[in-house]
Amino acid sequence: MSVVKPIGVHALVRRTHEDRVLVALRERGALSRSELATVVGLSRTTLSEITGSLLARGAIIVVDTDATSRSGSGRPAERLALDPRSGQYLGVDFGHRRVQVAVADASHEIIASGSARYDDGIDWRARLDTTFALIEEVSSERGTHFGALQAVGIGVPGPYARTTTAEPGMSWGRREPAEGIDEAFHDRFGARVVVDNNTRFAALAEALSIGSSGGDDVIYLRLSDGVGGGLVIGGRLVVGSAGLAGELGHVAVAGGTRSCRCGKTGCLETVAATPEILAECRRRGVDVNDLDDLRREVARAHPVVDAVLRDIGGAVGRALGTAAMTLNPSSIVLGGPVVDVAPALVDAARSALRFELASISPALPDFRTSTLGDLAGAVGAIAAVFRESPLLANYPGVADAVTPSPTMRSSIR
Amino acid sequence: MSVVKPIGVHALVRRTHEDRVLVALRERGALSRSELATVVGLSRTTLSEITGSLLARGAIIVVDTDATSRSGSGRPAERLALDPRSGQYLGVDFGHRRVQVAVADASHEIIASGSARYDDGIDWRARLDTTFALIEEVSSERGTHFGALQAVGIGVPGPYARTTTAEPGMSWGRREPAEGIDEAFHDRFGARVVVDNNTRFAALAEALSIGSSGGDDVIYLRLSDGVGGGLVIGGRLVVGSAGLAGELGHVAVAGGTRSCRCGKTGCLETVAATPEILAECRRRGVDVNDLDDLRREVARAHPVVDAVLRDIGGAVGRALGTAAMTLNPSSIVLGGPVVDVAPALVDAARSALRFELASISPALPDFRTSTLGDLAGAVGAIAAVFRESPLLANYPGVADAVTPSPTMRSSIR
Repeated sequence: MSVVKPIGVHALVRRTHEDRVLVALRERGALSRSELATVVGLSRTTLSEITGSLLARGAIIVVDTDATSRSGSGRPAERLALDPRSGQYLGVDFGHRRVQVAVADASHEIIASGSARYDDGIDWRARLDTTFALIEEVSSERGTHFGALQAVGIGVPGPYARTTTAEPGMSWGRREPAEGIDEAFHDRFGARVVVDNNTRFAALAEALSIGSSGGDDVIYLRLSDGVGGGLVIGGRLVVGSAGLAGELGHVAVAGGTRSCRCGKTGCLETVAATPEILAECRRRGVDVNDLDDLRREVARAHPVVDAVLRDIGGAVGRALGTAAMTLNPSSIVLGGPVVDVAPALVDAARSALRFELASISPALPDFRTSTLGDLAGAVGAIAAVFRESPLLANYPGVADAVTPSPTMRSSIR
Repeated sequence: MSVVKPIGVHALVRRTHEDRVLVALRERGALSRSELATVVGLSRTTLSEITGSLLARGAIIVVDTDATSRSGSGRPAERLALDPRSGQYLGVDFGHRRVQVAVADASHEIIASGSARYDDGIDWRARLDTTFALIEEVSSERGTHFGALQAVGIGVPGPYARTTTAEPGMSWGRREPAEGIDEAFHDRFGARVVVDNNTRFAALAEALSIGSSGGDDVIYLRLSDGVGGGLVIGGRLVVGSAGLAGELGHVAVAGGTRSCRCGKTGCLETVAATPEILAECRRRGVDVNDLDDLRREVARAHPVVDAVLRDIGGAVGRALGTAAMTLNPSSIVLGGPVVDVAPALVDAARSALRFELASISPALPDFRTSTLGDLAGAVGAIAAVFRESPLLANYPGVADAVTPSPTMRSSIR
């Protein structure tokens, strides 16, 4: 396991007045209402309503009465502070080979994060044990307490739709369904749980990080052990009729000949997933077995590796071109660990995308790589449980988020 | 010009109470408030508010006082009726070679429609002259009056975005921009005008005709002189960041080699537009010059024509498969005049789509052909000006629809 330094992810969602109060308390410590009103620029009346609500919900507490510094003759002013034990939110991103967790406080700031690896083949029970241990470790290092955890967002690999009945076909080959995971987390933490596809959560986080300048229409493509994607269209995260929207890994690429785990032939995933990138290098005689090997060959500018990355990047760019021609997004975000390792792939994808859309200049979106990296899925899961972004309007997984019903019996034993 | 029988297009938009009142008056003629309340199942109080609003807006009128049939000793009951001269809505769909118009009354029923042909090369001024003459003809046959026209929806070919500045690249080759068309209609009819891409309007109409059972996530593809499309995603008509969403005619198809008017090579339009279908038949030795020729060869089961239609249908289905993999729609609608002429093309498209999505069964959408035919664009234009469908939430062309400002000077002289 590795516990990394918390990173600041400001402005995850649009700041409300309440957010501004929480941020002020987080950044400045305990403040009187009068000081708070000055800091956040709100009237005493408005502020009073907000602090009243936050106190009632246990997000903030009265820490002392500021008797020493009182200047007038009235009642001593109370000082307010964040309750460190309350208002925490947990985001969990289950990948095929690792789990990533992030914790946000009531001010929506990411205050801790960490990841742990596991074998691709282990069952959900074992993944959960690893994950719960990681969460303990992350929280103990930060001195956090999960007694007052408000909500948990959980990203899982593969299609996930709360609104549809799981069918055998939805598990897509070797992946077992993650049914019951919501109940397992609810039993452990006693908090509200939202589950969705982890790449969709990552797309949400990336769109939020782009913000109002282009985050309303975003295609997110993630190259990892598999290839997945997520869509924000017209300012809303898109789920699709069966929870499958954004599965760009399974669009056909021109000339693709390899069988895909999904049952089709020539899917983008059979070309651009990390294991396929490494395998193609080996097929052309370069001995690379993981991303560290690839990074090493890129650093010494191996011409065969460069050619492989450019070929695959071209296929990625052409697939993105088709998606962009269909959706006319303002931004495309390319993510996944290989993105930082293989700039040649990113460059080739950008070139191919530009070529595909060259004749239709208004269709050309901004093209960027992920700014959130491997934390995107967990951050997006937290953003989803915050439920405050317009991007989540009508989002079924969030709107319906409740504690699991008895009929949703766990498949995890 | 041809003026066709009006067709009934019920339930264009979700019926509100107001709609139910209007429909009752349309179907049953003049009614007293008491009769209306019984027919539509509303309380007298609610009904009174609705009829008051409709009377104030001139949508209905008091036609007589029902003194003869009064049973009590109170004031004679007024009878209400639709004002035939008011509450009319005009939808216009400009194609490359024909214009289609439709007229709806205040009850949202299509009461008249017609079409006229023109040469592809004529300018917008000449198209407008043809169109205005057609509108006169349609209205005189129906005895309608446009003095009280409420609004006009206008579909134009090619990309159209109210929210972006037109750029040279947006006219896509030979098409001149349709700027100023809104002002020309406003000058003529003095009504509110909404302009958008005609295929997007057709997609709206098709999604509305599917209704709540699958109209929330729809891909519409239209094969005509060009190939266009429109998207309804998550219950909303999608415009895209530059008004280009749904341009499925310009996604690349595998093996496509012909240059497209957009500047790219191998676009779906270079394979599946009607002129390309006819040209492919000729390249394989069958003399067909228009859809009537094609219909004749299909009727005699010409094997070469059948092969051409199946090949092209396959390409259409594969392109739809990619779009469906990206968007996970509940329904796909294939439209355009060739659809009724060439069932083999439709069958092949359905088969290819099913093959593409076979391994991911929850992704398989309902596949159907257009039920509205050539009238879809005009019907969708009317639906857009009704502004009452949730599908149009945040739809910029509708929300911003106002009379043209003086700075939007016409390019039509």
